[in-house]
Amino acid sequence: MGPNWAHLVRFISEEDGQIHLGEVDPSKYPDVGIAIFNGERVAVKLVKGSIFDGTVTDTTVHIARLLAPIGIEEVPIIRCMGLNYRDHAKEANMPIPDVPVVFIKPRTALNGPHPAKINVPKIAQDGSSDYEAELSIILSKTGRDIPESEAMEYVLGYTCSNDVSARTQQFKNSQWSFSKGLDGSCPLGPVLVSPSAIGNPHNLQIKAIHNGTVVQDSNTREMIFDIAKTIAFLSQGTTLEKGTIIMTGTGPGIGAMRNPKVVLKHGDDMRVEIEKIGTLINEVYYE
Amino acid sequence: MGPNWAHLVRFISEEDGQIHLGEVDPSKYPDVGIAIFNGERVAVKLVKGSIFDGTVTDTTVHIARLLAPIGIEEVPIIRCMGLNYRDHAKEANMPIPDVPVVFIKPRTALNGPHPAKINVPKIAQDGSSDYEAELSIILSKTGRDIPESEAMEYVLGYTCSNDVSARTQQFKNSQWSFSKGLDGSCPLGPVLVSPSAIGNPHNLQIKAIHNGTVVQDSNTREMIFDIAKTIAFLSQGTTLEKGTIIMTGTGPGIGAMRNPKVVLKHGDDMRVEIEKIGTLINEVYYE
Repeated sequence: MGPNWAHLVRFISEEDGQIHLGEVDPSKYPDVGIAIFNGERVAVKLVKGSIFDGTVTDTTVHIARLLAPIGIEEVPIIRCMGLNYRDHAKEANMPIPDVPVVFIKPRTALNGPHPAKINVPKIAQDGSSDYEAELSIILSKTGRDIPESEAMEYVLGYTCSNDVSARTQQFKNSQWSFSKGLDGSCPLGPVLVSPSAIGNPHNLQIKAIHNGTVVQDSNTREMIFDIAKTIAFLSQGTTLEKGTIIMTGTGPGIGAMRNPKVVLKHGDDMRVEIEKIGTLINEVYYE
Repeated sequence: MGPNWAHLVRFISEEDGQIHLGEVDPSKYPDVGIAIFNGERVAVKLVKGSIFDGTVTDTTVHIARLLAPIGIEEVPIIRCMGLNYRDHAKEANMPIPDVPVVFIKPRTALNGPHPAKINVPKIAQDGSSDYEAELSIILSKTGRDIPESEAMEYVLGYTCSNDVSARTQQFKNSQWSFSKGLDGSCPLGPVLVSPSAIGNPHNLQIKAIHNGTVVQDSNTREMIFDIAKTIAFLSQGTTLEKGTIIMTGTGPGIGAMRNPKVVLKHGDDMRVEIEKIGTLINEVYYE
């Protein structure tokens, strides 16, 4: 028996002020991130258990605050794909890579949806803080040397994420883990959608929206290494732990490559919108 | 009250077959790794508590098997320095970097001393498995935006480590987290030496020894970014969690840059020897 939720949220409830999991009815709330941002009162069915084995109950509760769909204590690591969209590689004037370009964010980068903010620390307040709209997956179980043919069995669900990047630091250093690993540099959520509710994950429109302007608009079919290939690649000789987040790369239109450039500034409204999942909203905060 | 151990080991005891911490007397066992490898019976004083707060007791127990000085459940992440020795940067024909070249290994890379083996998975069995002798530190507490002047207060202790690298994969991919993040690619230990017992950590001879031949022989004074600078750099806008391992980089003489090349082969004897700490021994195992 696996989990039986389809549209999972993690949240603090109005009723008891505690963290819970809940099942959203998309016929009532097609985009929970937007609904909460607009001040709507959102009712969900309480989910009992963890995100890995949760079952939907008949109890209705209300969302006081949305959280990332997984807590930091359940996330061993965040693995990320670079240059994984054909249209983005073209924009960056980079050849289509032969092997996945993979890097790591520490779990301390995990961040939630609004009202959680994209935190820009001092070192990134140099006019180079940038967004990357990405489809993320969470792994349902631990595995190693996973064949491509079995890889999709490891996907617990799909959600929105933003690979927030400090470009000055990134372009100074051959390795990206520092510039892309700052605290809060991985906003995630709000809804985790099950594989059966997503259907084909390689045919989803994905957008970044900065202060109301669409700045990225691609489709997950542009991925160079699809999700099964990515999981199979990463698991070679490497144990992928349950709860690992995998960010699958971004399309064209990142701030650093726009003309004129777009930079995340204090107070900006930054959104990642993915078809069938919804919208991840964050205000930008210069600490 | 901090911990009062000076030369800490983590081990399975002869007496009860359980995992314990112990204090080694270096006047009796100047190099525990060598002693255990040679089949000596090693007595230690039992340490009560965790590695973060352990206190030495009067109870004597004996080592049945040495382990890494910290367990995987206490390690959030392994942060690593690339190109951090002047003499290695020269060997690699790379300019002395302006900023630390930092990358991440997942905690699943953690490995122990002999009888734990350096595991070489299929993907690295292509004549490119390589060693890098490195001084590692473990962080005693969680911090962020740590000033250089306070950074050394975060060092719990010093130990030996090997940044095992799959060079073919490394040279194929701009990012190093995959090629240096395979399971078991961070052998660590066996002895964790306290800051007071080490004294100056930037004046320690450090060697790699492959099948009895010294293949790396440098000194930690060759570090470009010293340990305080490294911690201060990494903590900018970034929470460094207690238990984080920081590998501080390697000297010249890595296998890929020797003439003829040296490759880790099945059954090889690989050692990392650091002054005042001892020797980390691992047999190489092609799985």
